[in-house]
Amino acid sequence: MKYIYAYFLKEDLEKLNEVAPTMSDKKKLLGGKGAGLAEMTRIGLPVPPGYTITTETCMKYFEEKGFPQGLWDEVLEATKKLEEHTGKKFGSDDNPLLVSVRSGAPISMPGMMDTILNLGLTEKSVEGLAKQTNNPRFAWDAYRRLIQMFGNVVLGIEHNEFEEELEKIKEKYGAKQDVDLDVEALKELVEKYKEVYRRHGYEFPQDPYEQLRMAIKAVFDSWNNERAIVYRKINKIPDDMGTAVNVVMMVFGNMGDDSGTGVAFTRDPRTGEKHLYGEFLPNAQGEDVVAGIRTPHAINEYSKQDANRDLPTMEESMPDVYEQLKNVAELLEKHYKDMQDIEFTVEKGKLYLLQTRNGKRTAAAAVRIAVEMVDEGLITKEEAIMRVTPENVDTLLHPQIDPKAKKEVIAKGLAASPGAALGKVVFDPDKAVELAEKGEKVLLVRPETTPDDIHGMNAAQGILTARGGMTSHAAVVARAMGKPAVVGCEELSINMKEGYFIARGHRINEGDIITIDGTTGEVYLGEVPLIPPSISGNLEKILEWADEIRVLGVRANADTPEQATKAREFGAEGIGLARTEHMFFGEDRLPIMQEMIMAQSKEDRVKALDKLLVMQRSDFVEFFRTMEGYPVIIRLLDPPLHEFLPSREELTEEINELKMKLKEVTSLREMDLLLSQINEKKRILSVVNELHEFNPMLGFRGCRLGIIYPEIYEMQVRAIIQAAIQVKNEGKEIYPEIMIPLIGHVNELKLLKEDLEKVAKEEMEKSGEEIKYMFGTMIEIPRAALTADEIAKYAEFFSFGTNDLTQMTFGYSRDDAQAKFLKKYVEMGILKDDPFKSLDWDGVGQLVRMGVEKGRKTNPNLEAGICGEHGGDPKSIEFFHMAGLNYVSCSPYRVPIARLAAAQAQIKHPRK
Amino acid sequence: MKYIYAYFLKEDLEKLNEVAPTMSDKKKLLGGKGAGLAEMTRIGLPVPPGYTITTETCMKYFEEKGFPQGLWDEVLEATKKLEEHTGKKFGSDDNPLLVSVRSGAPISMPGMMDTILNLGLTEKSVEGLAKQTNNPRFAWDAYRRLIQMFGNVVLGIEHNEFEEELEKIKEKYGAKQDVDLDVEALKELVEKYKEVYRRHGYEFPQDPYEQLRMAIKAVFDSWNNERAIVYRKINKIPDDMGTAVNVVMMVFGNMGDDSGTGVAFTRDPRTGEKHLYGEFLPNAQGEDVVAGIRTPHAINEYSKQDANRDLPTMEESMPDVYEQLKNVAELLEKHYKDMQDIEFTVEKGKLYLLQTRNGKRTAAAAVRIAVEMVDEGLITKEEAIMRVTPENVDTLLHPQIDPKAKKEVIAKGLAASPGAALGKVVFDPDKAVELAEKGEKVLLVRPETTPDDIHGMNAAQGILTARGGMTSHAAVVARAMGKPAVVGCEELSINMKEGYFIARGHRINEGDIITIDGTTGEVYLGEVPLIPPSISGNLEKILEWADEIRVLGVRANADTPEQATKAREFGAEGIGLARTEHMFFGEDRLPIMQEMIMAQSKEDRVKALDKLLVMQRSDFVEFFRTMEGYPVIIRLLDPPLHEFLPSREELTEEINELKMKLKEVTSLREMDLLLSQINEKKRILSVVNELHEFNPMLGFRGCRLGIIYPEIYEMQVRAIIQAAIQVKNEGKEIYPEIMIPLIGHVNELKLLKEDLEKVAKEEMEKSGEEIKYMFGTMIEIPRAALTADEIAKYAEFFSFGTNDLTQMTFGYSRDDAQAKFLKKYVEMGILKDDPFKSLDWDGVGQLVRMGVEKGRKTNPNLEAGICGEHGGDPKSIEFFHMAGLNYVSCSPYRVPIARLAAAQAQIKHPRK
Repeated sequence: MKYIYAYFLKEDLEKLNEVAPTMSDKKKLLGGKGAGLAEMTRIGLPVPPGYTITTETCMKYFEEKGFPQGLWDEVLEATKKLEEHTGKKFGSDDNPLLVSVRSGAPISMPGMMDTILNLGLTEKSVEGLAKQTNNPRFAWDAYRRLIQMFGNVVLGIEHNEFEEELEKIKEKYGAKQDVDLDVEALKELVEKYKEVYRRHGYEFPQDPYEQLRMAIKAVFDSWNNERAIVYRKINKIPDDMGTAVNVVMMVFGNMGDDSGTGVAFTRDPRTGEKHLYGEFLPNAQGEDVVAGIRTPHAINEYSKQDANRDLPTMEESMPDVYEQLKNVAELLEKHYKDMQDIEFTVEKGKLYLLQTRNGKRTAAAAVRIAVEMVDEGLITKEEAIMRVTPENVDTLLHPQIDPKAKKEVIAKGLAASPGAALGKVVFDPDKAVELAEKGEKVLLVRPETTPDDIHGMNAAQGILTARGGMTSHAAVVARAMGKPAVVGCEELSINMKEGYFIARGHRINEGDIITIDGTTGEVYLGEVPLIPPSISGNLEKILEWADEIRVLGVRANADTPEQATKAREFGAEGIGLARTEHMFFGEDRLPIMQEMIMAQSKEDRVKALDKLLVMQRSDFVEFFRTMEGYPVIIRLLDPPLHEFLPSREELTEEINELKMKLKEVTSLREMDLLLSQINEKKRILSVVNELHEFNPMLGFRGCRLGIIYPEIYEMQVRAIIQAAIQVKNEGKEIYPEIMIPLIGHVNELKLLKEDLEKVAKEEMEKSGEEIKYMFGTMIEIPRAALTADEIAKYAEFFSFGTNDLTQMTFGYSRDDAQAKFLKKYVEMGILKDDPFKSLDWDGVGQLVRMGVEKGRKTNPNLEAGICGEHGGDPKSIEFFHMAGLNYVSCSPYRVPIARLAAAQAQIKHPRK
Repeated sequence: MKYIYAYFLKEDLEKLNEVAPTMSDKKKLLGGKGAGLAEMTRIGLPVPPGYTITTETCMKYFEEKGFPQGLWDEVLEATKKLEEHTGKKFGSDDNPLLVSVRSGAPISMPGMMDTILNLGLTEKSVEGLAKQTNNPRFAWDAYRRLIQMFGNVVLGIEHNEFEEELEKIKEKYGAKQDVDLDVEALKELVEKYKEVYRRHGYEFPQDPYEQLRMAIKAVFDSWNNERAIVYRKINKIPDDMGTAVNVVMMVFGNMGDDSGTGVAFTRDPRTGEKHLYGEFLPNAQGEDVVAGIRTPHAINEYSKQDANRDLPTMEESMPDVYEQLKNVAELLEKHYKDMQDIEFTVEKGKLYLLQTRNGKRTAAAAVRIAVEMVDEGLITKEEAIMRVTPENVDTLLHPQIDPKAKKEVIAKGLAASPGAALGKVVFDPDKAVELAEKGEKVLLVRPETTPDDIHGMNAAQGILTARGGMTSHAAVVARAMGKPAVVGCEELSINMKEGYFIARGHRINEGDIITIDGTTGEVYLGEVPLIPPSISGNLEKILEWADEIRVLGVRANADTPEQATKAREFGAEGIGLARTEHMFFGEDRLPIMQEMIMAQSKEDRVKALDKLLVMQRSDFVEFFRTMEGYPVIIRLLDPPLHEFLPSREELTEEINELKMKLKEVTSLREMDLLLSQINEKKRILSVVNELHEFNPMLGFRGCRLGIIYPEIYEMQVRAIIQAAIQVKNEGKEIYPEIMIPLIGHVNELKLLKEDLEKVAKEEMEKSGEEIKYMFGTMIEIPRAALTADEIAKYAEFFSFGTNDLTQMTFGYSRDDAQAKFLKKYVEMGILKDDPFKSLDWDGVGQLVRMGVEKGRKTNPNLEAGICGEHGGDPKSIEFFHMAGLNYVSCSPYRVPIARLAAAQAQIKHPRK
């Protein structure tokens, strides 16, 4: 096993190509940063020389609980070669080699892990650096920065212990800024820093190899720090990837006004526009940009923001270097065929590229870049589709501020991540999590964010910060999360301690509601109405391409004609699930439904059902009209009857209250009235008690009801067929599919089918019209999947009800599990995902596969789909595609996501 | 397809041997009766000639809704040959051929289907019969019987319409008995019967072939009459077997004192003693014996009962024929290698065998006959084991009357079916069903029973009749059902109308409790204490043989050391399931358990758990001592915590009551007391509310509790290991197995195993003792079976919890389903069995198979058993044997049944 690849060596680059031929292999082995450095070197770009310790080495380090055997020898060897290559020498008092030691994981985890700069400086080599640069102040500043960073990152000494010493020295010497400290002051500061070390029982190591060894170890360890673990959990990054360690010769952006450091995107990450976009901080090291403390300059006119409108651009101050950067950017984009996020440093007028990677972007930018790159001939449609994530589509379908709404702007910041959000103002990330868990919508408001705030950002609807630029932590992370964000909103005056902020004279307390618009950067007072999004432009194009590619159909779950209309608008190819019971909860219908349930005889029940028939028929007529030309699956009554009645507790309380009143009656008439009310409530209560079940989920519902009270389903089928005849007579094409819920044994379906087809036939004969319809069942009980071969003999279609199937396969009650143990299970890593959100491939998925395979064995023409909530989850859609389903059905707003995810699934796992 | 086999023809017997080589094939094709007639003919016994229409023909008749093509031609052909063979002629006025037409199913359904005798008599041939027999009275009596039976069976005219006419004629002619009617009277009666026909729009057919055609049709139809359907459901006989039709030349037992008819068993069906046993009715047709209206004579001294003590035996009145019968009986038993139930008729001193079949017998007789036949060298041990049914063993394990109990005998009848039973007296079979469904124990008391009473007999604990002999309907059916019965108890004077009976001066009203002893025939006043049975004698021998043969282990479910002791006594080879939670419901323990649940902190919880530890440890010590040398599986806490607290309703009511009291307080102290009580109740209520779940079955229980509150399982494992160490130190061999319930994902088990093994190790290190124990899990969640390969990596044993597995695989809540729909499902035939009683092979069974196979794939040494209630159900045991489980575990009283069933499974499906 080779631990290290020194990318400045040709033989190592060749070896690398051998063991990791593709870019993705390289990233896996060397991390994104290391792979980028190697690749840039290979294509001849100016990169500071260095080497990368592989991710495999990191995992081996954890396995063996220490440096793997031979690693240190390889480090020494690579360092020696680096010395030879650069002509510098580690720890030299003449021409010292300084390096940065940085983490770099296969998947970018910005700010999550550790970095040490200026490594190699010692009491001795600091003088060497001073001599070499002819700048003792610069050398001593670099040295004190190393000691500070090393102490914090490697030894875990709190940052502010050093900051305090810095402040004291600044005070002592009357220095306003760090840069005002002279060599003397810096030397004194170094001594103070060393005292901080001693307070913790450490000495700053004077052997640069010792520094290197400890730094490498610290980077390895940072893979498993708490922040990194949380980040990985949120972003579903596997824990066993490991991080690489990049040891790279230092170049300095802080060597004067002909130096500087910056970040550039080859296209605008906010909008996707094809224009170089970035920020540049003159006379600074890279960390200063990322931390967002000093306001960076724009690299060109295009990139200017309100905050740096008046600062000179890099294009203006170093036109040659800017030109070089522009060329490099073009070259890199053509090479990687994707928008690049480039970190660079200018050392005394010389451009160095420190890193390149595919740039994070807003959803809108992702879609635009993908579409335009196809138009430019850079990538294929398939590649474009893979570039857009389902989350991107989701974000674009987020609500926007209603343009017609009245609103009061109380502040304006940078439009860092688009979309509108509203919620209660919260300043503390922990509190944001706490409230969000209770179902409250919150906005996280912070002076600036750090990696420690990730969990709060994740819980919030949106993020608002007072400081930081477009590439600040808050901006980058919010875009990645698809959360609306306004950053660098300097109008805000935040009082963290007392929990409020002031903006344009308004005092906003914690808990007050505000609205932000991440697309414009505006902050509004109170709750501003939002409007639902629509599909157009680039998104429309991407989805059209997705439709060309995908083989999995996409239908929608809709319970009302309005929802069905929305579904068509979003591209649904039919209704996968129309729940008839939702039609019974209407104000005018519930009393009749209750009448039906309370009926003492079949005749009374039929009388109530006759009234419901008229209503159901008119619902179905609307449905069929709306979905003209498309299939509509109507599920017959599913929930237990008690859901239509008041609860036991309610009734008991009402009866108790009436009884209390009884004690205070003053007239016989009043008493009679009360007594009759009590009796009526008692009558209902007795029915509710009769219907009571210990486990309603496993109870008397679905087809079980349909079998015991055949008249209910008969009414529904009558209504469906009558409606179908009516709409057909209007000249419209219709494809009704009648679905029986909760089948567990083939005999249930057989019995119901025989009975209900008779009813359908009766209705058709009555009207003289022939209606083509399908008869099928949900597969939502494990036994149904296990015996699907039998069931398919009587079903023309299956629709997997993965919600219930998940409940029964896991033995989880969806209504209870979350709070009681499921949340903790996901946190503890017992389950990778909440199985109600993302299908459990191993368990529930096995039943789905079995259901499809067995079903098709006895009925090769079986139509198979899924109508559980997993129908809108991309990872689940990938599975359903692989399992050979005909379609997924999801809520109307998830339809575009499903269209994209289905196309991606086809690209990843082609299916005929 | 050959419809008919004429067994008097050699070529047909040969053909039969070709298409149905084994006796069981023959029974399937010709029914038990037809196969017996053919077989008896083949071995040269005196059988009246005839032919059999096959069961296949019957099913074809139902399919084609009428006579299959060609059937009638075959009937005509066979009848012609029968005429040739007998020299008689159908419808002849000279030497007429008369036949009986009888049903005969592959599995005996006594009295369930129809029979017509004397068929072939017409106005013309009745004269022929008179001439031939020289007995016009006999001929006309036969004719009027035919008309009556034909009217009832073929045309569905009520029996009593004919009886009324008979009574009138008897009155008119002053006849006391039927036999007192002369030819004149009988001729008049025939005319009256014909009038009855005309009242219903019929004429009695004068064409004997028309009679034959209608009779065959009626027998076919009788397969699907209501009685037959109910009988098949109770006895789990498939509906698609069909019945054969036997057309047999009539022989007459009612041709004078040298004639008669009877039933004989080759061994005593009550006790199994090797002695010819039976009844005989001189000058009578067979129907008279079965109906139980006239008291039959004993065939020999041995068979005498109180009722026929003074009547001459057949041995006395026809010694030669008796001797011939005895020889035939011996021959038949040797031929069939089982005890035979023989129907015979003597016509003018000539013996005819009408039927032979394996005789029904009591459980004790079944066991004794099986054992003795092995001793006699007649059958093998395997055959003996197959002869005893699990129900037989169950019956023998029924309670018996406590011999020491004080009791008052109020009547004595025939000891028709052994075992003791007590319950409320009920006279109406429907009412018996109704009360039994409410969980009441009832005894059905009837003057005599008919096939219409089957459902009531099935629902009753026991049966008591005032009339009928040992082969009466009540006696035969009760023995078959394994229900205690006393029949022919003539001391009873029953008033059905007013609902009471008088016996030895006591008036017993409907609803009063009595006790019967089917082993002695005694009836006792009130409730007599019963004692549990024990295993000895023949049963012990059979079970020993079963143990030699079976490969499936049998363990017991036991929650207390007492149950464990009982289990060992009954032959359990270990404890398959000890539920620790049952130990927490003790009076001294529940409060501590509640303290644990109400604990606000981990420390408080641990404090309560420490107290429970001491108690659990002492339970386990007892268990291990009792089960020395055998494995004991202890399941860690399983039920949801709320089960240990009062219910919401209870608490709310208590709080309401206290609040009511509050309105009436008279002192401050009283008020304070009330308020503090209210607060305490509210505190409990708030915990109960917090623990409340919509679907507790799918809720926070089992290992989910163990994971969220690790201290609970840690305490239990500590107690198990401490107890094991203590008992080991007493010098006893112990095999503890620790079982985790409700695993659904391998990670649950992995996590718990790591934690709990640490605890076990700690305890062992503390004591310096090494305990060998196993660590395993229940497989009771579908997902666990589906992913058993993963789970088996961390489990040394699986125990299938088929109760919960059935709940989740079907989506049935056991607590709710029965009343709401499951009972109806079984009645409607949607489900063949209640899946909670008998394992669903197709669905749940598939998961069991999958669990075993997948589990053994990753862990070949996996021990696999089952501890659901199916562990004691023979049909389920057969499945578990085939699925390759190592053992079944059931309640102690089912252990002997499981031992037998396991051996039978091995004989049917040999497994290494």
